[in-house]
Amino acid sequence: MRILGIDPGLNCTGYGLVAHDPPSARLVEGGVIRTDASASLEVRLATLAQGIRGVVSDLDPEVMVVEDLYAKYEHPRTAILMGHARGVILLAAAERGLQVAAYPASLVKRALTGHGRATKEQVASMVVHLLGLAQAPEPRDVTDALALCLCHAAPMRLEGRRGALPERLARALADQGAVPRRERR
Amino acid sequence: MRILGIDPGLNCTGYGLVAHDPPSARLVEGGVIRTDASASLEVRLATLAQGIRGVVSDLDPEVMVVEDLYAKYEHPRTAILMGHARGVILLAAAERGLQVAAYPASLVKRALTGHGRATKEQVASMVVHLLGLAQAPEPRDVTDALALCLCHAAPMRLEGRRGALPERLARALADQGAVPRRERR
Repeated sequence: MRILGIDPGLNCTGYGLVAHDPPSARLVEGGVIRTDASASLEVRLATLAQGIRGVVSDLDPEVMVVEDLYAKYEHPRTAILMGHARGVILLAAAERGLQVAAYPASLVKRALTGHGRATKEQVASMVVHLLGLAQAPEPRDVTDALALCLCHAAPMRLEGRRGALPERLARALADQGAVPRRERR
Repeated sequence: MRILGIDPGLNCTGYGLVAHDPPSARLVEGGVIRTDASASLEVRLATLAQGIRGVVSDLDPEVMVVEDLYAKYEHPRTAILMGHARGVILLAAAERGLQVAAYPASLVKRALTGHGRATKEQVASMVVHLLGLAQAPEPRDVTDALALCLCHAAPMRLEGRRGALPERLARALADQGAVPRRERR
């Protein structure tokens, strides 16, 4: 399955395509779509829409994965602008007939590292490890987009929070010393 | 000039087209675009985009007027969802090569009633009066969209807050008993 992860932003939207052929997951392409901060909002949105349509057309994914709608922003204005970008991205998916999946940030962290409060760095390490990369792609928006792909690919996501980790993920977690927390009773 | 006002919302987006041939302003069409609350977000955005493109195509405006980006929402989630809708609407304008104008709510109120803290009802009365309507269009989203058109049409907007009101607007204000507030010095 070809999974397209998108990390929406008006200035910079990260994307990444992962080809998932269980148990392997391979990075096909990652990148960003930038818009000109001096242009009008509507022109920036048109640039973003054009970029996303190009990515979808070139990479031919079966699903688009985005972070769930989130509301915890320090600046409400930034959150609303992100909403503009996310709206245009989801529209591009719908008009292409693409399935959309959305996961909360905590689930992405848990699917990759075993716990929902992992740091950005721990998540990035797991992206690098699971995709067999030399280092985390820059800018960070690309790595965040790839984390969404891997969350979608993780069987753990489907099996619930106490489900078994896939072998490779479990090995990687052991390597990282990132052992899933468990509550004793 | 044909002015299209839009009051963006995910559930219900109001629109109105005003033909402005100074000093007259005439309502050409007003209405709403609704989306199915049980559909997925991306499908709702596609419905909205299709609706707006249809309105723009049928009514052939020269400018689209929206409320300025606003951040005062009781529920951040609602604000972000409104951002999704507004993004898709602005994209439709950009892709049609349509000029976009955005005014803060307080300016719309001031342009129509003479003061920036007018109530919704006072603004609606002025919309009815200036367009020579029998009553305020329902739902309120349509009236709000028409208020944006009239703000764009008002010379007062261009001349600054102390500028002269056009004669018809001044007469209407006198009828309403809504006299612009002035600060004495």
